[in-house]
Amino acid sequence: MIKVGIVGGTGYTGVELLRLLAQHPEVKIVAITSRTEAGIPVAEMFPSLRGRVDLKFTTPDEAKLNECDAVFFATPHGVAMAQAKELLTHNVKILDLAADFRLKDVKEFAKWYGIEHSCPDILAEAVYGLAEINREAIKKARVVGLAGCYPTSVQLGLAPLLSPKSTGGKQLIDGNHIISDSKSGTSGAGRKAEIGTLLSEASDNFKAYSVKGHRHLPEIVQGLKAIAGHDQIGLTFVPHLTPMVRGIHSTLYVRLTEAGKDLDYQKLYESFYQNEPFVDVMPSGSHPETRSVRGSNGIRIAIHRPGGGDTLVILVVEDNLVKGASGQGVQCMNLMFGLPETTGLTQIAVSP
Amino acid sequence: MIKVGIVGGTGYTGVELLRLLAQHPEVKIVAITSRTEAGIPVAEMFPSLRGRVDLKFTTPDEAKLNECDAVFFATPHGVAMAQAKELLTHNVKILDLAADFRLKDVKEFAKWYGIEHSCPDILAEAVYGLAEINREAIKKARVVGLAGCYPTSVQLGLAPLLSPKSTGGKQLIDGNHIISDSKSGTSGAGRKAEIGTLLSEASDNFKAYSVKGHRHLPEIVQGLKAIAGHDQIGLTFVPHLTPMVRGIHSTLYVRLTEAGKDLDYQKLYESFYQNEPFVDVMPSGSHPETRSVRGSNGIRIAIHRPGGGDTLVILVVEDNLVKGASGQGVQCMNLMFGLPETTGLTQIAVSP
Amino acid sequence: MIKVGIVGGTGYTGVELLRLLAQHPEVKIVAITSRTEAGIPVAEMFPSLRGRVDLKFTTPDEAKLNECDAVFFATPHGVAMAQAKELLTHNVKILDLAADFRLKDVKEFAKWYGIEHSCPDILAEAVYGLAEINREAIKKARVVGLAGCYPTSVQLGLAPLLSPKSTGGKQLIDGNHIISDSKSGTSGAGRKAEIGTLLSEASDNFKAYSVKGHRHLPEIVQGLKAIAGHDQIGLTFVPHLTPMVRGIHSTLYVRLTEAGKDLDYQKLYESFYQNEPFVDVMPSGSHPETRSVRGSNGIRIAIHRPGGGDTLVILVVEDNLVKGASGQGVQCMNLMFGLPETTGLTQIAVSP
Amino acid sequence: MIKVGIVGGTGYTGVELLRLLAQHPEVKIVAITSRTEAGIPVAEMFPSLRGRVDLKFTTPDEAKLNECDAVFFATPHGVAMAQAKELLTHNVKILDLAADFRLKDVKEFAKWYGIEHSCPDILAEAVYGLAEINREAIKKARVVGLAGCYPTSVQLGLAPLLSPKSTGGKQLIDGNHIISDSKSGTSGAGRKAEIGTLLSEASDNFKAYSVKGHRHLPEIVQGLKAIAGHDQIGLTFVPHLTPMVRGIHSTLYVRLTEAGKDLDYQKLYESFYQNEPFVDVMPSGSHPETRSVRGSNGIRIAIHRPGGGDTLVILVVEDNLVKGASGQGVQCMNLMFGLPETTGLTQIAVSP
Repeated sequence: MIKVGIVGGTGYTGVELLRLLAQHPEVKIVAITSRTEAGIPVAEMFPSLRGRVDLKFTTPDEAKLNECDAVFFATPHGVAMAQAKELLTHNVKILDLAADFRLKDVKEFAKWYGIEHSCPDILAEAVYGLAEINREAIKKARVVGLAGCYPTSVQLGLAPLLSPKSTGGKQLIDGNHIISDSKSGTSGAGRKAEIGTLLSEASDNFKAYSVKGHRHLPEIVQGLKAIAGHDQIGLTFVPHLTPMVRGIHSTLYVRLTEAGKDLDYQKLYESFYQNEPFVDVMPSGSHPETRSVRGSNGIRIAIHRPGGGDTLVILVVEDNLVKGASGQGVQCMNLMFGLPETTGLTQIAVSP
Repeated sequence: MIKVGIVGGTGYTGVELLRLLAQHPEVKIVAITSRTEAGIPVAEMFPSLRGRVDLKFTTPDEAKLNECDAVFFATPHGVAMAQAKELLTHNVKILDLAADFRLKDVKEFAKWYGIEHSCPDILAEAVYGLAEINREAIKKARVVGLAGCYPTSVQLGLAPLLSPKSTGGKQLIDGNHIISDSKSGTSGAGRKAEIGTLLSEASDNFKAYSVKGHRHLPEIVQGLKAIAGHDQIGLTFVPHLTPMVRGIHSTLYVRLTEAGKDLDYQKLYESFYQNEPFVDVMPSGSHPETRSVRGSNGIRIAIHRPGGGDTLVILVVEDNLVKGASGQGVQCMNLMFGLPETTGLTQIAVSP
Repeated sequence: MIKVGIVGGTGYTGVELLRLLAQHPEVKIVAITSRTEAGIPVAEMFPSLRGRVDLKFTTPDEAKLNECDAVFFATPHGVAMAQAKELLTHNVKILDLAADFRLKDVKEFAKWYGIEHSCPDILAEAVYGLAEINREAIKKARVVGLAGCYPTSVQLGLAPLLSPKSTGGKQLIDGNHIISDSKSGTSGAGRKAEIGTLLSEASDNFKAYSVKGHRHLPEIVQGLKAIAGHDQIGLTFVPHLTPMVRGIHSTLYVRLTEAGKDLDYQKLYESFYQNEPFVDVMPSGSHPETRSVRGSNGIRIAIHRPGGGDTLVILVVEDNLVKGASGQGVQCMNLMFGLPETTGLTQIAVSP
Repeated sequence: MIKVGIVGGTGYTGVELLRLLAQHPEVKIVAITSRTEAGIPVAEMFPSLRGRVDLKFTTPDEAKLNECDAVFFATPHGVAMAQAKELLTHNVKILDLAADFRLKDVKEFAKWYGIEHSCPDILAEAVYGLAEINREAIKKARVVGLAGCYPTSVQLGLAPLLSPKSTGGKQLIDGNHIISDSKSGTSGAGRKAEIGTLLSEASDNFKAYSVKGHRHLPEIVQGLKAIAGHDQIGLTFVPHLTPMVRGIHSTLYVRLTEAGKDLDYQKLYESFYQNEPFVDVMPSGSHPETRSVRGSNGIRIAIHRPGGGDTLVILVVEDNLVKGASGQGVQCMNLMFGLPETTGLTQIAVSP
């Protein structure tokens, strides 16, 4: 059994981790920390866990995280990087659900997150946690910076068009003018007392936000460049707040180059993802819906080419709390510990 | 492995059965029937099942239901009773999610459902499928008429106040004046093309319905009488349509008798349900919420006595598609086949 | 034109007052105050008012409230009573949307609101703002404590059964055992940064709250006693949080006495409310829905007697922000200034 | 008073017309037709109209539409064109909310709507009902084919970039590669008994639909060509179904040409719409939200240029039932009868 600790379990990614890990056959959750809630049973805050998770929140000191095999950080940005060194000294593997180990460029990190990176050396060795792209590196990693929710949907939605594995090095699309029109449920905003995501504000309403620039933009661009193996990537990324709890739907628009005009993109995608347990390339003409992955680690993709023109439209759905966060974490953990990748992640989506 | 057939799998209880049974370690789903959808892959209608359920809908003839060990009916009222005799001849156990085998009085059945009962003899042997009340009978049953969604919440919410097991035969409450103010999500209305449950109609809206008389009223009254062991039961039952997908919340009001005034009802409930794996009596002062059981087979109950007066308020939540329908069916099936009652039903609620 | 000031306009009752008053033909809004938002245009916080309300929030000092004809308090409890004396000195009429002038018993006020009442003398002269019950008194009032949202629905739902005007002094119901099972949208909780009413928490969910005791309980009981003209009133009041923005649905249960068993309650209600412009007694057998009054000052009521028994079920819907708050305020203001009661309140409900 | 008839008032655009026209100071609604509902009071089907609209549905024969001054068609496609000639003979002005008089090319009409156009001559004289673009023509029109919901948002969102009035004839954008990622509430699908828009299906869910080709695509392209005065227009249009009742949010992406790179688009838009009563160009950096126009005839637009690059992002919100349908109809009617354009359309958005 893998002994797992969770730092900061009072948010949505925290409770989702608990839901998944409590049902994981190879995991024993040994500690979950929260300074503010120390002493409180987890199931008191999250009644959905009553009878299934008996832990109490503890202070970080009591948690003895150094004795864990793996520690998940379900914390605000900046926490994981402060504790990473100590944990690594004790051979604890680290999975960070926040952004501390995502952006490789410390200047970019400082610019978008407003804090200096405190351990650039660990950042240098950290692996970006997106198993479908980085599987082998994750297997060997000591520190994984798990991919963000939007970035997961955009990168997996575009990888077959950019990766030399499937393109053979040809430029199939105009990589400088990619558009991602992304929509997220409110759980992506986290479990925070804020007016903007009150039901009274966000329900029966739809709006874009952060059009000027969202923190996930540099992460996606970095990821797409890595996938493509070159730097000719430009992205317009517009996130929207949708009146639902879970789910991300990214609608991706790319312009085909001359070189890309004669390919069968349905086949390209099916071939690229044929062995991926969590990626479902839907039949041609499909419209994936977010509820079809609600509560599951699946991601579904459909490819359209309206009117046979030079614009390709790719539709991608995921559950932002599972494949976009905690499920991704468990998937990476499985890889890091040599387990079958789907262990503990076989939940079927709850629909309706 | 139990070979299971499902008749009529195109509704919400059908797809929910598939979700649960596809993850059940002791079940093999061998057939799912739908005359209108025969030949269509189940996962085409329900994309949430893509990659997990490979069956196609078949006609009842092709389905060879006679070779099954158990057949679930997820059909409109009247279908199960037409096929029951034939199946029993072949030693197939029957679990009906509709109302054909719920009401013991054929006149009541005809009155509320508008059709004559076609097999009163089978009805006579059928067992009411509410495991917490009827466990031993279900174990031996050939035919189980699964309890309805509202009736499950009301009966389990009131059983400790009425059952001689806990009352010792005393009349603790005025059984003639029970009030159940119940609220259901729209999935309770089924997957039917109707205007009243369109999102445009039912969203951001709240209303009562069928105040004059709902089909679950006679079922609940029959059940409460059976639990109480007497006929002094009168119920005012008002169902409401709530703008959510899953979940039932029943708010029950009972008046305490003189004999009932000095009891500790928190203890009474905790004692009554102490060994039940799916019933959670919450701590005193709790307010259970429907999402705390979303997607799970759990039922949560809280007991209040506002102002210490003579009115007891019992709050009950369940997922109408799980504990109120398909999960209840799997629970009963487990009992009928000698399996541990929780087999395949250990999903933790998806929350948020 | 009536010169109106609004104190504390940053909440939902504030913006709703602005919506109504900006369209009121006899009103000029001269000031709206908010210490925290002073200097900010109202339409910046509430874009729905862009192009329609040009005011900026001001500090109370700048607002020159003493020069107004009327001042609305859309503030937390405790603010209106601190400023009332000064305003009255300047002959400004006061309408308080909070609870400062609702409860006549200062001990009850202190018990439920946790603060001592600072001006019992003004409280003594204040009139309870529920026009259908208190019309004549409101016309002459200098200070009106507007009825709360739940209390409006419960009192208007029960008045015909209790008021000597319609009962002729007979006890038609068991007044000691009234049950109000009430459901509210989340806007009733106000525009406050809180976790419990986030869309991620409150959406696709249903729960009761404050079953132990809600602040509206003493207000309702006081009101029912006043209507009945006696003290034999006992109420079990259970509020529920519903996943919608606006709307209250109260389901009221009363037990008929022998004296009450032979009346035609449909007629009783129709007669009682026949001249009320905002109260709609629906046809027998109706199920009013909250959206039928969304955005309007209407209240709709239906009366049921299931099975012809001795329990009467009354269904009441209102928009908590209009008839339950700001519309009620405008209605009372109209009365106080001798205007036709419906002036500025003729909006038709927005449905769907 | 303008005598108005409504053909087919049982859908959402019908009830919305009634809401608006019943409050219109210069209109008398004389008839509303529905074959299936003839004899039924309108307020029985739409309780929100109780006490405000006393009409019953009538058969078309009884309705004496020929005696009206104007007739609105809130019908399925194909109905208006069958009745237009007769009405015109009697000097009745026609406003069609369906698509019969939108597409000027009868082949396109037949291709997208599956029926032949029955009166090409009337189609030829019909004016496209989008007042901000076609004001003068509408004033003189006998027949107006009102702009569709999506087309209104896309055309008004792009007009300042295409119209020679503001561009001075320069090509500011690459008109051949416009992208409209549009999101609609479910009321856009109409009041029809369908599974796909049940609350149980569409709630807590998000999906694209009709990516292959939506009927509004040719309408938008026709409109943009007319605005631009040339044919170099290519559009990728992807509509999405959003879990809310009312509202459309179109996110528009255009690529600037060299000629377009140095303009101030905020000013361009503000200038273009400076005299429009219903179009609100929001301050730079804004994110309009659909609820800010809920129930009102307003349309709000914000312009973004992320990172100062060559992609312009325009955000547009409207209420699909008001500015996208019935409000648009009233606005055009006002013009046709020489009334101030805002008459009866001064509702402030209901928010929250």
